[in-house]
Amino acid sequence: MGVEFGVPLSEIATSNAHGEDSPYFAGWKAYDEDPYDAVSNPSGVIQMGLAENQVSFDLLENYLKQHPETSSQGSGISGFRENALFQDYHGLKTFREAMAGFMEQVRGGRAKFDPERVVLTAGATAANELLTFIVADPGDALLIPTPYYPGFDRDLRWRTGVRIIPAHCHSSNGFQITIKALEDAHAKAVAANIRVRGILLTNPSNPLGTAITRTVLEHILDFAVQKDIHLISDEIYSGSVFTSAEFVSVAEIVEARGYELDCDGVHIVYSLSKDLGLPGFRVGTIYSYNDRVVTTARRMSSFTLVSSQTQRMLASMLSDREFTGNYIKTNRDRLRKRYEYIVEGLKNAGIDCLQGNAGLFCWMNLGPLLEEATREGELSLWKLILLEVKLNISPGSSCHCSEAGWFRVCFANMSEQTLDIALRRIKAFMEKSKARKRQA
Amino acid sequence: MGVEFGVPLSEIATSNAHGEDSPYFAGWKAYDEDPYDAVSNPSGVIQMGLAENQVSFDLLENYLKQHPETSSQGSGISGFRENALFQDYHGLKTFREAMAGFMEQVRGGRAKFDPERVVLTAGATAANELLTFIVADPGDALLIPTPYYPGFDRDLRWRTGVRIIPAHCHSSNGFQITIKALEDAHAKAVAANIRVRGILLTNPSNPLGTAITRTVLEHILDFAVQKDIHLISDEIYSGSVFTSAEFVSVAEIVEARGYELDCDGVHIVYSLSKDLGLPGFRVGTIYSYNDRVVTTARRMSSFTLVSSQTQRMLASMLSDREFTGNYIKTNRDRLRKRYEYIVEGLKNAGIDCLQGNAGLFCWMNLGPLLEEATREGELSLWKLILLEVKLNISPGSSCHCSEAGWFRVCFANMSEQTLDIALRRIKAFMEKSKARKRQA
Repeated sequence: MGVEFGVPLSEIATSNAHGEDSPYFAGWKAYDEDPYDAVSNPSGVIQMGLAENQVSFDLLENYLKQHPETSSQGSGISGFRENALFQDYHGLKTFREAMAGFMEQVRGGRAKFDPERVVLTAGATAANELLTFIVADPGDALLIPTPYYPGFDRDLRWRTGVRIIPAHCHSSNGFQITIKALEDAHAKAVAANIRVRGILLTNPSNPLGTAITRTVLEHILDFAVQKDIHLISDEIYSGSVFTSAEFVSVAEIVEARGYELDCDGVHIVYSLSKDLGLPGFRVGTIYSYNDRVVTTARRMSSFTLVSSQTQRMLASMLSDREFTGNYIKTNRDRLRKRYEYIVEGLKNAGIDCLQGNAGLFCWMNLGPLLEEATREGELSLWKLILLEVKLNISPGSSCHCSEAGWFRVCFANMSEQTLDIALRRIKAFMEKSKARKRQA
Repeated sequence: MGVEFGVPLSEIATSNAHGEDSPYFAGWKAYDEDPYDAVSNPSGVIQMGLAENQVSFDLLENYLKQHPETSSQGSGISGFRENALFQDYHGLKTFREAMAGFMEQVRGGRAKFDPERVVLTAGATAANELLTFIVADPGDALLIPTPYYPGFDRDLRWRTGVRIIPAHCHSSNGFQITIKALEDAHAKAVAANIRVRGILLTNPSNPLGTAITRTVLEHILDFAVQKDIHLISDEIYSGSVFTSAEFVSVAEIVEARGYELDCDGVHIVYSLSKDLGLPGFRVGTIYSYNDRVVTTARRMSSFTLVSSQTQRMLASMLSDREFTGNYIKTNRDRLRKRYEYIVEGLKNAGIDCLQGNAGLFCWMNLGPLLEEATREGELSLWKLILLEVKLNISPGSSCHCSEAGWFRVCFANMSEQTLDIALRRIKAFMEKSKARKRQA
């Protein structure tokens, strides 16, 4: 039970499966205690561990300024009564339509989305947990290619009792997913008498910042079909690929295959937290090609509904295709520029990054700096960077990366000025490290 | 597994524990297909199965009209960026403070609430499930006095794997909870080798429309302490008691006992869906006297966060104590009047109701009309009323009532005109029934 006194709690409550004691979250606390501010705390910690998109906020703000009716649709008198009472778990029809349209637009119109299959949830966190409840029983497993988002350990396992079996990817091929990695993970599960129920992909990948190629995606879907397991594709960064053409959604593959029975195990997760930069509004969605999954997910969404006020405001904003088209394009351009800027800056400091094409972060290789190529060595370096360089970045080990020395560095949650300071700090650190090495 | 073809789903997905096939939900569907409208569909079904509060909406609308800044705080340009990015699972501090203050005000200032112990969830549905995950393991049980809210069968059991053991209450003492009922249910669990982890009360009760007396509440808490189990008090109708003095919150008992160790198993659920009539905004809360429960619930609330836009708007509205004080008082008065009006109308039709003092419904006894005093007899009568009288009311059996013939009738989700039509229909039905009986 785990409690020393008082009324006993459940195993879920007393387990550590929430994972919030990991370095990933510990770094956030260090930032919270000593946050960088150009004026008031210039020597504070710069938060580079937060995958948040602030580079295109001005576009949203301009839209609201030009369309004040959008905000009043959310919470003004007009429609207040209707909003306040609207609790149907289907969600507002206009909002589901707008979401489906936005998802199409993000994919360059290369895949169709039926609003009737859009299930709303309060964020992608809930969407991923909800799908896990639906596809797997306690004790069963999902295969997840590494490195993967540290939050999955909590989101997919904590309350469901489902396990994650990592399918290890390697730097030798740029961390691309291979069928061998999936086969190995699957075989490991079978050997341990664990039933595999699905694969969860993040495409584009967090933390890698890379989109999965069409060929690899085809092979993964074939693998899932052959094993009779689900394929959950978390595409929350699909609008953050630097050019539309570089991203292939599993939706395109499903469409190309003519929605065959094969595809009834395919489910897509999306959210407005990353591409639109609206994590506070808690809007996630599940899109499934399986009728029973749609029905069940919708019923289950009672536990995690989206505020109708927020639905209405966003329905209005996302229905303006001219605005969204411009937003998507401008946001991609700005992210690409930021990415190129940070990668160039890191290169100048003597650091290599994985070649990326998506997301709000780069995947940085500090392997050459490690005293020992182990998780411990990586965490020592991470602590040094957090406490001395005052940068909070995420160690690859918190993403279950199979190789030591990789770090995720977020670049879209700060101003260019702050990014410059961060790059200067890294450069100084690298020079000091080199000098130290020469002395040694 | 339960599916005939396609990729297999989980037991949770394929079970019927969501309960949406019950008469309670079936009645909603009948209403949806043929909804009453005074002009366009005067012979349609009147929805009396929905516990929704529309009687005080004008007060909220007036407030928004007089305080346009409230809406813009929710979604206007001002603060948009801040809102959009705010995803801390602690919730907005100003909103937690406003919620704590509102909960105190609803209880006539007789109990204090610490904003640091307020955990936000997307509605009470999520709050109740979340607490169940925290206090009980799969296979364990919660005791719930009957009759109880039909949704609990889904909310507390579906994804948690926890069971509900009903503690049956009876009309002989006005359905008051007795320690004997709890002891019997507990003994039944022990005999079946099921571990009881807690009691869930709804106070005031849905569907009874009655508040629990101080003495009964004291005994229930003593029982929980003695058995070393949790006491979850769902108080979502606490602001809908017709006079403040008639409601005793478990918070008052805890305060009177000086927050002794005894109280670390006590948890309160609240929401703005009923007392303020804002179900669409999805605001629920857990208040616990147990530090570990607060911490765990907060972490778990990642799956069910409240939109920051909605938090900000409501923080502003609920911080205005003059407004909330007036709202609470006026809302109580109007609900009492509605209650007295419907009870009087039913009496005129020859129908008795349980003496109530709270809520958005009355508990009506149609026992004398049953052909046979069984669940089947009750459901036949329910169908007759739904299909012929065109009223959707909720059969007591869907609330696990131990006696046949009781029905929950909601009165706050419609205009007075519609309520009059409903009463006229019932009266005509009763006269026809009497005539039939005389003929027989």
